[in-house]
Amino acid sequence: MILSSFYARSISFRFFTLLIFGFLFTCPDSGFAQEIKSPDGNLIVRFRLSDSGAPVYELQYKSKTVIKPSLLGLKLKDAPDLLDGFELKHSEQNTFDETWKPVWGEVREIRNHYNQLLVTLAQPRTKRIIQINFRLFNDGLGFRYGFPAQDSLNYFIVKEERSQFALSGDHKTFWLPGDYDTQEYNLITSNLSEVRSKMKAAVTPNVSQFPISETSLQTPLMMKSKDGLYINIHEAALIDYSCLSLELDDRNMVLESVLTPDALGNKGYVQAPFETPWRTIIVSDKAGDILESKLVLNLNEPTQYKDVSWIKPVKYIGVWWEMITGKSSWAYNDLNNVQLGTTNYMNTKPNGKHAANTTKVKTYIDFASQHGFDAVLVEGWNQGWEDWFDKSKDYVFDFVTPYPDFNVKELQSYAAAKGVKIMMHHETSGSVRNYERHLDTAYKFMVEHGYNSVKSGYVGNILPRGEHHSGQWLVNHYLYAVKKAAEYKIMVNGHEAVRPTGLSRTYPNLIGNESARGTEYEAFGGNNVDHTTILPFTRLVGGPMDYTPGIFETRVSVHNPENTSFVRTTLARQLALYVTMYSPLQMAADLPETYNRFLDAFQFIKDVAIDWDDTKILEAEPGDYITIARKAKGSTSWFAGSTCDEQGRTSKIKFDFLDPGKKYLATIYSDAKNAHYEHNPQAYQIKKRVVTSNSTLIQHCAPGGGYAISLVQIK
Amino acid sequence: MILSSFYARSISFRFFTLLIFGFLFTCPDSGFAQEIKSPDGNLIVRFRLSDSGAPVYELQYKSKTVIKPSLLGLKLKDAPDLLDGFELKHSEQNTFDETWKPVWGEVREIRNHYNQLLVTLAQPRTKRIIQINFRLFNDGLGFRYGFPAQDSLNYFIVKEERSQFALSGDHKTFWLPGDYDTQEYNLITSNLSEVRSKMKAAVTPNVSQFPISETSLQTPLMMKSKDGLYINIHEAALIDYSCLSLELDDRNMVLESVLTPDALGNKGYVQAPFETPWRTIIVSDKAGDILESKLVLNLNEPTQYKDVSWIKPVKYIGVWWEMITGKSSWAYNDLNNVQLGTTNYMNTKPNGKHAANTTKVKTYIDFASQHGFDAVLVEGWNQGWEDWFDKSKDYVFDFVTPYPDFNVKELQSYAAAKGVKIMMHHETSGSVRNYERHLDTAYKFMVEHGYNSVKSGYVGNILPRGEHHSGQWLVNHYLYAVKKAAEYKIMVNGHEAVRPTGLSRTYPNLIGNESARGTEYEAFGGNNVDHTTILPFTRLVGGPMDYTPGIFETRVSVHNPENTSFVRTTLARQLALYVTMYSPLQMAADLPETYNRFLDAFQFIKDVAIDWDDTKILEAEPGDYITIARKAKGSTSWFAGSTCDEQGRTSKIKFDFLDPGKKYLATIYSDAKNAHYEHNPQAYQIKKRVVTSNSTLIQHCAPGGGYAISLVQIK
Repeated sequence: MILSSFYARSISFRFFTLLIFGFLFTCPDSGFAQEIKSPDGNLIVRFRLSDSGAPVYELQYKSKTVIKPSLLGLKLKDAPDLLDGFELKHSEQNTFDETWKPVWGEVREIRNHYNQLLVTLAQPRTKRIIQINFRLFNDGLGFRYGFPAQDSLNYFIVKEERSQFALSGDHKTFWLPGDYDTQEYNLITSNLSEVRSKMKAAVTPNVSQFPISETSLQTPLMMKSKDGLYINIHEAALIDYSCLSLELDDRNMVLESVLTPDALGNKGYVQAPFETPWRTIIVSDKAGDILESKLVLNLNEPTQYKDVSWIKPVKYIGVWWEMITGKSSWAYNDLNNVQLGTTNYMNTKPNGKHAANTTKVKTYIDFASQHGFDAVLVEGWNQGWEDWFDKSKDYVFDFVTPYPDFNVKELQSYAAAKGVKIMMHHETSGSVRNYERHLDTAYKFMVEHGYNSVKSGYVGNILPRGEHHSGQWLVNHYLYAVKKAAEYKIMVNGHEAVRPTGLSRTYPNLIGNESARGTEYEAFGGNNVDHTTILPFTRLVGGPMDYTPGIFETRVSVHNPENTSFVRTTLARQLALYVTMYSPLQMAADLPETYNRFLDAFQFIKDVAIDWDDTKILEAEPGDYITIARKAKGSTSWFAGSTCDEQGRTSKIKFDFLDPGKKYLATIYSDAKNAHYEHNPQAYQIKKRVVTSNSTLIQHCAPGGGYAISLVQIK
Repeated sequence: MILSSFYARSISFRFFTLLIFGFLFTCPDSGFAQEIKSPDGNLIVRFRLSDSGAPVYELQYKSKTVIKPSLLGLKLKDAPDLLDGFELKHSEQNTFDETWKPVWGEVREIRNHYNQLLVTLAQPRTKRIIQINFRLFNDGLGFRYGFPAQDSLNYFIVKEERSQFALSGDHKTFWLPGDYDTQEYNLITSNLSEVRSKMKAAVTPNVSQFPISETSLQTPLMMKSKDGLYINIHEAALIDYSCLSLELDDRNMVLESVLTPDALGNKGYVQAPFETPWRTIIVSDKAGDILESKLVLNLNEPTQYKDVSWIKPVKYIGVWWEMITGKSSWAYNDLNNVQLGTTNYMNTKPNGKHAANTTKVKTYIDFASQHGFDAVLVEGWNQGWEDWFDKSKDYVFDFVTPYPDFNVKELQSYAAAKGVKIMMHHETSGSVRNYERHLDTAYKFMVEHGYNSVKSGYVGNILPRGEHHSGQWLVNHYLYAVKKAAEYKIMVNGHEAVRPTGLSRTYPNLIGNESARGTEYEAFGGNNVDHTTILPFTRLVGGPMDYTPGIFETRVSVHNPENTSFVRTTLARQLALYVTMYSPLQMAADLPETYNRFLDAFQFIKDVAIDWDDTKILEAEPGDYITIARKAKGSTSWFAGSTCDEQGRTSKIKFDFLDPGKKYLATIYSDAKNAHYEHNPQAYQIKKRVVTSNSTLIQHCAPGGGYAISLVQIK
């Protein structure tokens, strides 16, 4: 039965109405199957109840199996499970088709077009009712559980969710070890059957980690089947629930949901009526479709923010890399013990390496102003950095008291006069109650002193102790901080927070997260050379990442002789990342003095847009290469970027995305012939060409290399 | 070595100076004993190190052993223990003698007079230093651990504290089961050797409880030895640490400290420099001295509040007992599922039993105004009561949104016009993060609407889940709420919070706690008849209790036929409690219509003072009887009260506390001859007599009875 589009939109809030309708459609036969197709017919999802009344679904793409028959349901604590014994009470199908405009994004308009199946299941032995909601798009499936308001199901505790994804084979997988706290491992590429043997080495040390098991994986999870299907599993709209991980049964190749526990081991506390986050499966036989998919965003609710004029993408530099490399310190002195309010910094001896001082910040502001950057991030400006790390310290920062050498008011005026913002930094050190206690004061301080964006961090184990970064308690906190920031017209970039799930549609002031292994790890031993050829297929499926690229001086020892790390990249590939790693928040992470040595290459970073009207995936293969072209918002300019792995390659692209009949000046920043991410990273070349929509490019990419192109329309 | 009084006062903050001094006094002989006496010489505490370098102390009173040689120290997590291997590095002795005035209290002035011993112990194998600080008063001992700032001891986790109290015999003990969450059990009177066999029955059900073991006891713990010593063990100045309980080794009669764990099982997180709370032992051969002791207050720091004019004792009535009895409800309707902000109460059907409505509150305000009460407590005024209880609900209250029938502004004006305050009620339902998120808004709301005092509650298990009511995390929260309240000039009365430890000296806006089994339990099955003859020896040693007496109609069934509980008291004894249960916060808890039936008896409650210049303990035996006389602050009037157990008794007192040569009109409210707490509770008589300091009284007290006397000086 197809209902009107209007009704369909509010279908999730019409539980009672559906129940009334349902009496007309009661289907006591537990074998009865439901089926819907995607709008283009390529995807089919089928739902039925097993003989024991357990919900079962399967997914096909163009007649290929994506998900074999898989069980759904939930185990409850101190209450009967919601696993089986169900009858189909009611089934509803409809279509939704709407186009919406994101506040910022990869494209100007997004089409939200799906066919929906909503099944209402009754469990007679307990008199309880649940719903399972399927939305099938051309690019994949989303499904979620709903718990209508009812007498028999009111407050309950989830012991574990049982959402299975029975895979059709031993897929090639790009994975991170399942972990309740960190996402900062290097990605592993292997078949599913190899996960178990590779897990131990994959779990490298992290200051806050809690690996789940030998065969647990994080989402977003990217796979490629032997029959050429690209499959991504993740979740959308993670609100008031515990974050999803996946436990792999590596004999049967079945993934099953594992939620993050709280301090007591419980997985979620629910009050009906409630809908869980969506579990998402993006599918295509074209890798690029995974990158283009807007499924996760589409499953999130539209924003209710009335005024979004204060939300703007940010291109920034920062007093940061020199601390990451170890050249400078966040801390002002070498005390190992600080008590905020008691410790008198004026009476202590500065260590001489504190980067966040007024003088230095002014030079960064000058540089930002000179080169057209919006903001300067400053880390280490506030008291408390001497003993912030790994001490389980409760009152670790107050977010408002600067070090003696950081003059808040002076820098406020200086930055304002130069037309540059300072980006605030709130490192919480995982001490979340402390952060919430100071949150209003901290945000007010920002507003009073001209800051409109904040990078927040959650480094270290969480306080309250026993909670995890990705548990329900913290999921609630991150959103609380974002919502409160909106009251102050503040944009938030959350590091070490839970991996995003498209919430930026509803809360567009959440302009970024890290929540993965970023550029900083290049200084902590290095990232895999192919890291950025995978991340857009995994981490970025849930939302943009503050990857902070732009490192031109890859040898960390140049800054800090004790640190022998180097960034696994050519300089040209760093430029490409501004296009291939979509984010409304883009940092030119290196030091101004480094950029001053390569101003011709730096020009690309200055020119590249950070908000887009259109995006084209030109080449894509996870783990190997990604080439993307994007059209700048409200402009005729295009920008392209290409990244590849340690093998290097020859990229071949067409410029057929350009306006026909127009000429463009293409400035191509690429690897020199002998460039190499390790041996010769700074060998780049810049060439200019006039191109049209008929042009093509064959471009050499070094190992760990790539290229970037700016395309400006000319007469 | 005796130092000046000035130096002694700041001794605890002079770690480094002492260490320097210490080099002059190093005593490498681990057997060397330290000894100090109380100012009057009756108490002696001795300290030494055992052969293995473990700290050992013992306590004597008038040559009787109070504490046999007992071990001290702490076990740390993931670090070497602080149990033994110590050497005495330095030892310091001095005297302190000062008189101070409490903002409110049982007496006008309090003398703080002690002899102090501070030992500095070095643990050579770990290069760590700790201090143990003993203060010996005439009424008992306090000791605490200190951790000076030092390289070898910075941040550490307490796995368990090892403070022993080796008792001299199988004492008669008045005890509560050790529990990490509740103090609301009925007190048990037994020998220590009987604790184990009585524990199971003692642990009655409570919505939030975590009994520790078969032989764990709470503090304050009251004991009476066979050789006639009264001994009370408790703690003082519980700040940023986990609350103390006591594990009994019932073969050797040794009590040992048990701290409350957090969600991970850790007992405390410490950053040096730090001093633990004081462990207190009050001793006397006179029971009344326990009641008179100011040791716990004296061990707390003086207040730093500049202005205390806004802190005033409160005599109040309240819309409360009718809900406790079940006659009315806190909830507005009979929904079992509320979502604040979504649930529209205007569209729901009220249950007709909601007491906190504008009309009723006005009648309470009228009554309060007519009879000279300061305030009216109103519980159930705010949205959320329908499903607040035992659901582990996070966003359970917002503390500012009233029910449709409670008109905040109208009642604000009405109360102001009548010269009465409304007492705010913040039931947190244990959802502590939620409370902190709303705290500023809630306090602001109070200030804007004329509320200056709040009763807060923590009913139910704590959120964050895994934390306990008496753990370090919550200890930190309660004080956070009190300190923030002071910013708004708000007084706090915390129910279900951790039992108090004298913090009211430092934070005098903490005017009360419940944190024990109070009058409400009389409607939940009844309290023991002798309950109030014990509580002042136990719970009240740490601070005043909001016991909420004044129940004149003891049969709960009169209000709610389904509730057959009755209050184990005569009416006369209820009056006595206003004197015997010291509190700056006193409620006349019954319903106005009940008081209207007994206005002659009610007169005592109207007359009795709630702040005192002097207190005399006339008769006292824990578990049997207490008779106290107190002089009203700034007045010549005295008030006396007497409470006894289920046996009844004849009280014999002298009025020699009165000013000599003056006459007083004594109004004596007492049990009628045939009164009985169960069979004839409302049989009372009121007699007037003129008395002088030479007068005596022989007064019959019924089983579960007592008497109250007001003494007004006359010409």
